[in-house]
Amino acid sequence: MTHALRTGGDRGYLRIATEEAFAIPEQLDAYLRLVRDGRADKATTSLWGFYGTSPSERTTFIRDRLLDLDAPRIQAMDETGVDKAILSMTSPGGQVFEAEEAKAIVTRGNDVLAAAVERYPDRYYGMTSIAPQDAAWSVQEIKRGRDELGFKGVMVNSHIQGHYLDEPQFDPILRACAEGDQLLYIHPQSPPDNMIAGMVEAGLDGALFGFGVETGYHLLRIITTGVFDRYPSLQIAVGHGGEALPYWLFRINYMHQASVRSGRYERLKPLKKTVVDYMRENVLVTTSGMASEPAIKLCIEQMGEDRVMYAMDYPYEFVADEVRVHDNLAIPFEQKKKLMQTNAERAFKL
Amino acid sequence: MTHALRTGGDRGYLRIATEEAFAIPEQLDAYLRLVRDGRADKATTSLWGFYGTSPSERTTFIRDRLLDLDAPRIQAMDETGVDKAILSMTSPGGQVFEAEEAKAIVTRGNDVLAAAVERYPDRYYGMTSIAPQDAAWSVQEIKRGRDELGFKGVMVNSHIQGHYLDEPQFDPILRACAEGDQLLYIHPQSPPDNMIAGMVEAGLDGALFGFGVETGYHLLRIITTGVFDRYPSLQIAVGHGGEALPYWLFRINYMHQASVRSGRYERLKPLKKTVVDYMRENVLVTTSGMASEPAIKLCIEQMGEDRVMYAMDYPYEFVADEVRVHDNLAIPFEQKKKLMQTNAERAFKL
Repeated sequence: MTHALRTGGDRGYLRIATEEAFAIPEQLDAYLRLVRDGRADKATTSLWGFYGTSPSERTTFIRDRLLDLDAPRIQAMDETGVDKAILSMTSPGGQVFEAEEAKAIVTRGNDVLAAAVERYPDRYYGMTSIAPQDAAWSVQEIKRGRDELGFKGVMVNSHIQGHYLDEPQFDPILRACAEGDQLLYIHPQSPPDNMIAGMVEAGLDGALFGFGVETGYHLLRIITTGVFDRYPSLQIAVGHGGEALPYWLFRINYMHQASVRSGRYERLKPLKKTVVDYMRENVLVTTSGMASEPAIKLCIEQMGEDRVMYAMDYPYEFVADEVRVHDNLAIPFEQKKKLMQTNAERAFKL
Repeated sequence: MTHALRTGGDRGYLRIATEEAFAIPEQLDAYLRLVRDGRADKATTSLWGFYGTSPSERTTFIRDRLLDLDAPRIQAMDETGVDKAILSMTSPGGQVFEAEEAKAIVTRGNDVLAAAVERYPDRYYGMTSIAPQDAAWSVQEIKRGRDELGFKGVMVNSHIQGHYLDEPQFDPILRACAEGDQLLYIHPQSPPDNMIAGMVEAGLDGALFGFGVETGYHLLRIITTGVFDRYPSLQIAVGHGGEALPYWLFRINYMHQASVRSGRYERLKPLKKTVVDYMRENVLVTTSGMASEPAIKLCIEQMGEDRVMYAMDYPYEFVADEVRVHDNLAIPFEQKKKLMQTNAERAFKL
């Protein structure tokens, strides 16, 4: 065995990676069509205009590995010691398409994923992709995902053509997740055209910066508009160290209270609880792309040890040393086991 | 004495607050004129349309205290144990005005501040405000601030009508700071119209969220365009826990290297050093509005103990308990003295 890390929980815990991406050819082709026809927003033009066509080593690897759900992926998991992967269609899923095209692609993606989970039942779990443009259809797909395909959560790739899940048209989706007891995972995409400014020209629209802005904004809108007062049992996960909200928590909480008290905004109404409370009772964060000991420890301190979960972000991030960073964290064993295994088992009901 | 905390360094260190705001009446009047005439951008309309007119307790206090540079401010410093304050004109300074109006207001503000420092030489230091719209003039004002007014740094309130300091027209300002050995402090304002999207309607354009997006973006543009390769001695400070860049550091560094390697962006050229290096050699962060032990410790871990400085953010933030959070940080005494006193003395050359 030349494997860098062993799987199988021989270290006392399993490694469950919670934000792992795949794609289907129809999806990538549709992104490229959108870009080619000039119908894509700046973000998708930047993201898939590059990842879909660049001949660089990094992008070729990512394209190949997104499309694979078999031996190479399992081998990559073995090599880096990932016992189980929770898979979802890569960003922006179907959210950039017209509703009919989105539903066709997402349905196909969910079917492909379900078949892969069936082939590797001890290695893969799936999340249901939806087309929030059609909320009623998405509610049905969430049910199909849970009841027929055995999926363990619902994936939304942040904004829906510039709209956010706190807006009323998406309420059926939030309700379906809450009532169906399905974790809602909000994955980044780049900001919409009215927020992206010069980020593309600056090279900062993607994972380097814009992803975190967009997704942190999305979660903060959900919290401050009282979604968790309407659905107290709803659980939402975000990746990349909580998209910096755990770091900002003190300031967000202070300024939220100050804004509400001074009546600055119509939209910032008093909530039943504080932002800190919602972050500790309704939000989970994962460590995708943030194999950073100070950041992970901060998340555990700010959110509580039950609210932080391991993720790799394969194939975008595929670095064995990053798994070791997690294994070697200077935290108690029980916290580490929660981080790597049992928080995911509880949150996704594995 | 009913003072909550004592000044005078009897605890073994002075408390030097590094991001403290004041205003002059002409400045606030000019913001209100801009808003009233419909010439303000969304951010300024939101910020000063509110802070300039709201009758709430918080905003009345802030307006009164911004305009004061005498007994009430000194008393506030005494009550919260702040030995020395480094003062600058409040955001957005003159950056939202036409150049001529900006220069008049900024000149007046610098003069008012210089007189206050002369009245309280053992309590106040000043930073030079500029009007980056006119870079040549700003260079002269930086010299006047340093040589004639005795100021210790230069304040820029993030974007200049949607433009950023990495753009060529501002190069003389960067050069003047580097060659004049003046710390450049980038303070937030809200994002420009092409980045603010629905943040105002959501109540998230200001200190709650938009400030950090805008200012983190600004610093990241400066780093990734190679400003510190051009000016290796240039030192830039940002507040609010480094506007989250210390938290994001692992991901930014990884994605920057991946982007450069794969040639994704014309603008992201190879740099002489890594983003981590620049953050640890050219950037300082302050704790304004972030009286959060996990966040401050993370900054020290990520940036090094010489790169983190105390700030209160008075009068926007005026909470004695937040000073205590700093005093009680579980860090070695020598680190605490650096945080509270000696890093500021070195960086601002007090």
